[in-house]
Amino acid sequence: MDLDAIDFRDIDPGQRTLMGPGPSDVPARVLQAMCAPCIGHLDPAFLSIMDETQQLLRFVFQTDNAVTIPVSGTGSAGMETCFVNLVEPGDEVVVCVNGVFGARMCDIVQRLGANLIRVDAEWGRTVDPEAVRQAAKARQPKLLAVVHAETSTGVCQPLEDLRDIAKESGALFLVDMVTSLGGMEAGLDRMGIDAAYSGTQKCISCPPGLSPVSFSPAAMKILRERKTPVTSWYLDMTMVGSYWGAERKYHHTAPINMIYALREALRIIAEEGLKPRFSRHLVNHRALVAGLEAMGLSMLVAEGERLPMLNAVRIPEGADDLKVRKALLNNFGLEIGGGLGALAGKVWRVGLMGHASRRRNVFLFLSALETVLRGQGLKVKTGALEAAATVYASETASDSA
Amino acid sequence: MDLDAIDFRDIDPGQRTLMGPGPSDVPARVLQAMCAPCIGHLDPAFLSIMDETQQLLRFVFQTDNAVTIPVSGTGSAGMETCFVNLVEPGDEVVVCVNGVFGARMCDIVQRLGANLIRVDAEWGRTVDPEAVRQAAKARQPKLLAVVHAETSTGVCQPLEDLRDIAKESGALFLVDMVTSLGGMEAGLDRMGIDAAYSGTQKCISCPPGLSPVSFSPAAMKILRERKTPVTSWYLDMTMVGSYWGAERKYHHTAPINMIYALREALRIIAEEGLKPRFSRHLVNHRALVAGLEAMGLSMLVAEGERLPMLNAVRIPEGADDLKVRKALLNNFGLEIGGGLGALAGKVWRVGLMGHASRRRNVFLFLSALETVLRGQGLKVKTGALEAAATVYASETASDSA
Repeated sequence: MDLDAIDFRDIDPGQRTLMGPGPSDVPARVLQAMCAPCIGHLDPAFLSIMDETQQLLRFVFQTDNAVTIPVSGTGSAGMETCFVNLVEPGDEVVVCVNGVFGARMCDIVQRLGANLIRVDAEWGRTVDPEAVRQAAKARQPKLLAVVHAETSTGVCQPLEDLRDIAKESGALFLVDMVTSLGGMEAGLDRMGIDAAYSGTQKCISCPPGLSPVSFSPAAMKILRERKTPVTSWYLDMTMVGSYWGAERKYHHTAPINMIYALREALRIIAEEGLKPRFSRHLVNHRALVAGLEAMGLSMLVAEGERLPMLNAVRIPEGADDLKVRKALLNNFGLEIGGGLGALAGKVWRVGLMGHASRRRNVFLFLSALETVLRGQGLKVKTGALEAAATVYASETASDSA
Repeated sequence: MDLDAIDFRDIDPGQRTLMGPGPSDVPARVLQAMCAPCIGHLDPAFLSIMDETQQLLRFVFQTDNAVTIPVSGTGSAGMETCFVNLVEPGDEVVVCVNGVFGARMCDIVQRLGANLIRVDAEWGRTVDPEAVRQAAKARQPKLLAVVHAETSTGVCQPLEDLRDIAKESGALFLVDMVTSLGGMEAGLDRMGIDAAYSGTQKCISCPPGLSPVSFSPAAMKILRERKTPVTSWYLDMTMVGSYWGAERKYHHTAPINMIYALREALRIIAEEGLKPRFSRHLVNHRALVAGLEAMGLSMLVAEGERLPMLNAVRIPEGADDLKVRKALLNNFGLEIGGGLGALAGKVWRVGLMGHASRRRNVFLFLSALETVLRGQGLKVKTGALEAAATVYASETASDSA
C-alpha cells in the first residue's frame, strides 16, 4: 500500500453535541484525566487508582459487591462477560426481549449452547411479568435476564416483579444497565440484582471502551461451582477478579488511560450526587417531551414507561429520516440516532445522557429540529420552546447546566 | 459505602519511564490526540478516522488484508479473537510453547473444545521446527500457532520454518505479534502469516486498550465456512468486520478516543518509517546488552535468539529482586518487569519498546541499575556506560532520540 498517497492530517473529529443513543458528551475534566501519563498496570500508583475506581463504581451501582470492576471492553463485552461466566451448556436461561439488546442477549445465550427460554414483548412496550412467570414455570432457569433501559426503543422496564420471579424460580437476576446506570434509580443491592453490566459512554459520560460489571456473592458462587471452564479466557471473572482483587495477580494489561477517564467521570457523579443527577435527567426529559408534543410529534413509548435518558420520537409523516439527521449534524453539529431493526425509519432516538442531559441541549435540539423540519417543507406547530420552558418553571429540581 | 471517607483527589499517576514488558512510554502527541472531542461511532468524521486507522494498520502489519482492524480490547482479546473465530470444537490445533503467552494460547484452545497438540520448548529457547513437524505429522491441524516475540522470556522465534510446516500441513499460520509489531521485521504478506494480533502498548507506544488484528483471505474463508457459530458475540469477526468494512453495520460502540490515539501512534510510526524504527530498536538493544554484560550480568537468552525490544537479564546472585525494582521505581521513576511463572525471581525484563527505545533510556537504566546494585552491597564491574557508548559509536544507524 502506498502511504504517501494519503494525507494523514492531525486528528480533528470536530465538536458535536451528542444527543444520540451514546456516546454522550464527555466533560473536559474526563478528557484531561484520560491523558495523564500512562504508567504500568502493576505500579502501586495505578493499583490505588484501581481501588478508588472500584469504590466509585460500587457507589454508582449502589452495591457492596466485592466483584465490581470495569471490564476491558465496551458495553457488549460486559453483556458477554455476564453470560459467559454464569451460563454453562444446557443451562436454562430466561431472556426478556422487547428490543435490540434483549435479542442480542438471546444470540449470546445460544452461542454458549444454553437452553434459551425467550419471552417477547412488542418493541416499545414493557415486558409483561405474567408472561415471564408462565415461561419460567416448571422450568429450572439458572438466569433470568432483562434490559433495564432498552436503548433501541426508550422503554424503561420495571424490575421488581421480574426480580421476584427470578427468586421464586431459584434463578440469578441479571440486568442490562448499559443506558440506565448513572441516569436513573437502580441500586443493585436494594433491588436484588445478582449481576449487572453497563457502558461508560451513556449516563457515565466517559468515552466508550470499558464496561462496568458487578457480580453478587450468589453470582460468584455459581461461577465458582461451574462444571465446565468459562469459554472466554479474556472475560473469565475468576481471573479478572484476581487482578482487581486483593491478589493483584496479572491477567491482562488493563486499559490504563481509559480507567483514569472512568475514575474522573465517576468522581463527577459522586460530586453531583445520585439523587440530584437522576432528578436532572428527569426534568430535562419532561421538557424535551413537552416541546416535542407541542410541535405535534408523538413519542413511541407510552407515558409512564419512558426512559428519562433515551427518547424515541416517531418520525412525522413527510419527513425524510436521513435528510433530517444529516441537516442536524451538518448545520447544527447535533447528533441524534435513527431507529434500529424494526424501528429503522420509524423513530429518532434522542439521548439526554449524563453530561449531555442539560437544559441548553433540550432547547438546542427543539429549535434545531423545528428549523430543519420547516426547511424541509413540513408544517410544525409553534410553541415547543414555551412548552419546554413551562416544565422547567414548574419543576423544583434544578438543572445544574 | 461511605464516599465522604475517601479523599478522591485529582488524577496524578506520576511520571514514569516505562522500561518494563509494556505498557511503554506514550508520546505526548498520542495523549493529545486521544483527548480530542468524543464523537459518534457512525459519524462520517469518525468513519474517515476508522478508514485511515485501517490503512495505517495495514502499513505497519505490511499487508493488503482487507480485514485489518483494532479489536476493542487489549492484546489478550486479540489472541482470543483469532482462536475463537478460526477454531471449532474438535479441530486440531498445534501450539508452540516456550513461555507464558504460548501457554495462554493452549488455555484458550482448550476452553474452545479443540484438540490441542502442544509442542514445548525450554523457556528462554526458541521452538525447534523439527519437533513441530513431528507433532503435526499424520495429523490434520487447522491452525499452527506461535508467539513471535515471547514477552515472558525475550526470545525471538524465527517464523520461516514454522510457516513452511503450516503450509505443508494445510494449516493456517497464526502469529502472536503483541510485542514484535512496530519494533522488528515481520511483514504478514511476505511471511505468509494468515492471522496475527498485537497490542497497542508495546512497540506501537499507544496506551493499552486495543488489539490490532489481521486476517488473510484464507483465514476469512475458514471463518465463513464454519459449521458452528463463533462462541463469542463480541469478537465475532464476521460482524466486527461488517462495521469496519464497507457495510458500516453497527455492531458495538467503538472505543472512539482510543482509536484517535492509535491512529496518531501509527502516524508517528509511518513518519519514522519501519526500517529506521527497526534499526533504532536494534541498536538500543545492543547498547543495553553491552552495558549489562560489562557490568558482569548475563542475558537469559543466547545471542542470535534475542528480541530487540524485550531483554531478559538474569538477576545476579545476592541481589533482591523486589528491592531492586522498588528502588528503580521509587528513586528513579523507572519501571522494569520481574519474571513470570518459572522465571519469577530469576530474571528482570527490561523493555526498549517503541517510543521508549532510545539512547537516553539505555543510559538512565544502566546508571540507575549500577547505583542500586552497589547501594545494596553488590560488587558491580565498571565500564557499563563506556560499553554502551561504544556500540552507538560503531553503529551507523542513528537513534532519533
